[in-house]
Amino acid sequence: MTETGYLEQIGSPVDVKKLTQPQLKILCEEIRSFLIENVSKTGGHLSSNLGTVELTVALHKIFSTPTDQIVWDVGHQCYTHKLLTGRKDGFAHLRQENGLSGFPNPSESEHDAFIAGHGSTALSAAIGLAQGKRLRGEKGKVIAIIGDGAFTGGMVYEGMNNIRTLSNLIVILNDNKMSISKNVGSVAQYLTQLRTSPGYFKAKRDVQSVLDAVPVVGPPIRMGIQAVKSAFRRSLYHSTMFEEMGFQYAGPINGHDIGELCDLFSAYQYEQSAPVFLHILTVKGKGFAPAEQNPGEFHGVSAFDLDHVTDPDVAPPSSFSTVFGEELASLGEKDASICAVTAAMKYGTGLQFFYKQHKDRFFDVGMAEEHAVTFSAGLAKTGLKPVVALYSTFLQRAYDQLIHDVSLQNANVLVAVDRAGLVPGDGATHQGIFDAAFLSQLDNFKVVSPCNYAETRHWLKQLLQETGPRALRYPRGAEDESLAELLCSGNEYDLYHFGDGTAHNAFVCYGGESAQVLKAAQMVAQKDGIAVDVFKLCVIHPLPIGLAEALINYSHILFVEEGIASGGIGEHLRSALEEKGFQGMFRHVGLPSLGISHASVDQLRRQFGLDAQSLLDLERGML
Amino acid sequence: MTETGYLEQIGSPVDVKKLTQPQLKILCEEIRSFLIENVSKTGGHLSSNLGTVELTVALHKIFSTPTDQIVWDVGHQCYTHKLLTGRKDGFAHLRQENGLSGFPNPSESEHDAFIAGHGSTALSAAIGLAQGKRLRGEKGKVIAIIGDGAFTGGMVYEGMNNIRTLSNLIVILNDNKMSISKNVGSVAQYLTQLRTSPGYFKAKRDVQSVLDAVPVVGPPIRMGIQAVKSAFRRSLYHSTMFEEMGFQYAGPINGHDIGELCDLFSAYQYEQSAPVFLHILTVKGKGFAPAEQNPGEFHGVSAFDLDHVTDPDVAPPSSFSTVFGEELASLGEKDASICAVTAAMKYGTGLQFFYKQHKDRFFDVGMAEEHAVTFSAGLAKTGLKPVVALYSTFLQRAYDQLIHDVSLQNANVLVAVDRAGLVPGDGATHQGIFDAAFLSQLDNFKVVSPCNYAETRHWLKQLLQETGPRALRYPRGAEDESLAELLCSGNEYDLYHFGDGTAHNAFVCYGGESAQVLKAAQMVAQKDGIAVDVFKLCVIHPLPIGLAEALINYSHILFVEEGIASGGIGEHLRSALEEKGFQGMFRHVGLPSLGISHASVDQLRRQFGLDAQSLLDLERGML
Repeated sequence: MTETGYLEQIGSPVDVKKLTQPQLKILCEEIRSFLIENVSKTGGHLSSNLGTVELTVALHKIFSTPTDQIVWDVGHQCYTHKLLTGRKDGFAHLRQENGLSGFPNPSESEHDAFIAGHGSTALSAAIGLAQGKRLRGEKGKVIAIIGDGAFTGGMVYEGMNNIRTLSNLIVILNDNKMSISKNVGSVAQYLTQLRTSPGYFKAKRDVQSVLDAVPVVGPPIRMGIQAVKSAFRRSLYHSTMFEEMGFQYAGPINGHDIGELCDLFSAYQYEQSAPVFLHILTVKGKGFAPAEQNPGEFHGVSAFDLDHVTDPDVAPPSSFSTVFGEELASLGEKDASICAVTAAMKYGTGLQFFYKQHKDRFFDVGMAEEHAVTFSAGLAKTGLKPVVALYSTFLQRAYDQLIHDVSLQNANVLVAVDRAGLVPGDGATHQGIFDAAFLSQLDNFKVVSPCNYAETRHWLKQLLQETGPRALRYPRGAEDESLAELLCSGNEYDLYHFGDGTAHNAFVCYGGESAQVLKAAQMVAQKDGIAVDVFKLCVIHPLPIGLAEALINYSHILFVEEGIASGGIGEHLRSALEEKGFQGMFRHVGLPSLGISHASVDQLRRQFGLDAQSLLDLERGML
Repeated sequence: MTETGYLEQIGSPVDVKKLTQPQLKILCEEIRSFLIENVSKTGGHLSSNLGTVELTVALHKIFSTPTDQIVWDVGHQCYTHKLLTGRKDGFAHLRQENGLSGFPNPSESEHDAFIAGHGSTALSAAIGLAQGKRLRGEKGKVIAIIGDGAFTGGMVYEGMNNIRTLSNLIVILNDNKMSISKNVGSVAQYLTQLRTSPGYFKAKRDVQSVLDAVPVVGPPIRMGIQAVKSAFRRSLYHSTMFEEMGFQYAGPINGHDIGELCDLFSAYQYEQSAPVFLHILTVKGKGFAPAEQNPGEFHGVSAFDLDHVTDPDVAPPSSFSTVFGEELASLGEKDASICAVTAAMKYGTGLQFFYKQHKDRFFDVGMAEEHAVTFSAGLAKTGLKPVVALYSTFLQRAYDQLIHDVSLQNANVLVAVDRAGLVPGDGATHQGIFDAAFLSQLDNFKVVSPCNYAETRHWLKQLLQETGPRALRYPRGAEDESLAELLCSGNEYDLYHFGDGTAHNAFVCYGGESAQVLKAAQMVAQKDGIAVDVFKLCVIHPLPIGLAEALINYSHILFVEEGIASGGIGEHLRSALEEKGFQGMFRHVGLPSLGISHASVDQLRRQFGLDAQSLLDLERGML
């Protein structure tokens, strides 16, 4: 007979330490049930969290945050950590406005050592924390937890090159075969090799002791046995890449055996002589009922599919991503020079359609946006037409490559910028609010921002017929219903009139935000009887020819964009107008770079004055 | 008796193929003499080029560009390649206006397969070229040449994860102990291990054949010999990290033995079954007379020092870098929480002074800007005061980390942005023209742009007393003589009056460009008798409090910046002024993102209208 209700008793990590191993096992099951029940209601990352329950419980059993510090890479696997650090009640409003964040955030808890959201950053952050502890003479370990998916990002390697002799640093490779499910990459193959030789590391110890006992034997072995022993010993001591990089390696370990995990962590709780690398095997979606009922299917489907109910990283059936993906796959039928490149987001970007039809021309490069962009420039140099599809927020990682490898040599690369603009749930780290600003710094980058599916299809096709650096940016999720009705003119911008007579007021907008602006214009015209012209841009950089001339005689211009104001398209248009002698009032509404937390997009629009009602109020104040 | 004058006969790579190995040896010496003579006149990267003479000659002897493609990483080691591909005459004007570029550039020659300038990009580019060749069914090899220094950049690793089975890809590690001279990093240690076991790879083959012949022996070896053989063989076949990543590894090879190099390359000239990794040892500055006359000193000094006469990557005695470095070292005496971080630019950034005095708090992380920034954020989290010094152009590589790890969590990181603005000689890939634009996108990033040494010292000290994300950006090289006279007020901006009476014209500027603007204002006042006020900004973001108010009543404002206009500080100021109801004319002079080639800074200023005379002419047109 075992007791239950342990999760209820956990107010802080100290309470975890009071439990015995059998009790911890029960706790893990309670956590699993809690996650399945709650996340199915609120949405969120389920599979990755089900995979790290035991790992997280064992960490809090052995180590003591915040003296010890845990740095989660990417961070969407931190739910158990949040549960154990006093944030259980927050799960009722996970990822919702004013609710619990779905990612680690130091401003939320002292147990969150570092921000997370983008991939492959944890090791660098942890090295900083560990060096800081060392220099300040502070105790405690710093533990970075990195998935095998994120292990394909270059920053991890930059970090590995800088571990020096940090004996307060522990790196946990949370190996859930994420990269394997995608079946790409040397790292994935290498990890498979380690995984499929689970006895090797035990054998290594055994062989070592046998080898020490080997006497010099006779003529059958011609070369000196000592030389063999020496070479063999070297191979034993440098048998993994991680050891070659300076880590003490241990693993692979079953990441769902709480006892084994606690034993492993205990070994490094106090003393260690070098940076430690722990290779831990976990199963994504572990304990997820549908998967357990269908173990065959469970092993056969990709990790992504497991999550399809609630995982926010998979494109829904109706979405810009799907429209883009299907259209690109179709265009690929007619043009064999089209290639598709993505960085670990085959499903999220809708590129699975292209993959299915044109496997040979599809490249998932892992979580490696920098490589993705420069690699695409290389493809372009051979005459192919690469389309590299990345989320706006992750494209930031390739800013230098866009400048250096694409723009400077005018490479024929088309960047498909998915999730451009505000995104729901994920919060500050994932907002796609910078791409319009940084792409529009580059003189030869044509940037197109469609507002609905029809425009997305049209401009994808159109841009594939053009050359040079080009970007097609579109929102996350589905098109706005009101925008779905708009026909695609194929023009660089469209003009819509609201109200009677000649308008002195112009609203200018682009992308998904156009729905709010058009609605506001309609309200101004209907409620206030003031005529408004709306200029809805498709091409946002360079500014459409004739746009400034068309706008110059309006007395009021309201420019609205779902991106940062500082350096945004609004500033460029204002400059272009002023250079031409514009004398009217120009009002620019955009976003700040900070403080855009998790909430629905509608809520965020209201918070930052981008919804129709706020725009109406603003316009009333202007007139 | 040997003939000479081979270099004269080389009009294209075809001519290299006609020479015998003894003749190639002579050619190499001729090239070496040519480089020493010419680069000592024009300046440029000497040591790195002296190290790659034989390597480059052997490549062109065996492979055939442009069918085979050579991608140089970083690219400053391409001089021999340029000599052999018909560009010898260009060396008289190397790195000069309208002269030969110091870096590979496809627009200069069909033998330059890809742009270069920033580090660690070559493998990704080469994989793109190689995949493109494969998909298009084109013949030829793609050869990426990467220094061991650049091997510390994460992009290389992202590339290694994506080599798949590309049997037309050859990677050459040009191991000149660059990373060793800096004595940092796991990669450096690992390469040392490979280097110091030169017999190992030969031994490997020998051991393998012996092992195949070993019979089962008696009881002294308790475990089955077959198991030992199996484990041993595995260790043989996976003995280097590069093999584990999927390459065929060969090396280390003497990179100055033309015969050995030709033999090696010949083996892969036609057929190969996998991506090949060739580990080639070269000596920086090989054949440089001062070094050869003092072999002891040659081995003792750092690779950087060898170059001090002509290498543009070392800070001259009088420079902003040196002023920054000395001041930071001095401040570090009083404040033990100050740390310094750089990415393989200890000398270039002037941080050698800090290193000498505070070795424990100095971190050279290798060519890894992404890691440098996130690592600094980690240090900051522990209460330390990290100063991460990077060149403006390379800081682009860490754009995402500045947003995600520094700005979003308001980390106390001070970024020292060296070489901000125009730079001489290096050309388009190295211009520091983006940092003001991208840093000013971030609401909580304080950006200071001193114009002379005094301001640099003051603001470094001042910013170290402040918190949050901060950047201090300063030009390459020495302060302008006219600016050296200006006293540092410590104000966020200074106002200078030119001419009599109340000025209706204001010029606004910041940083090194202020010299031109002040001079132009003086000319306007003296020659044209028109009063001008110059607002010289030190703090450029957020805009100084009161600046817009102080400017609002001028009828003409000319904003001049040595950075991109699109998204630059001028656009922000214009917006701020207009929001306050500014009714005058605002003229913004900045740079395009493209087309800023190698030339002196004075020449570049004239080309782009940033010199005093051009500004005077512009002002005359405005008034």
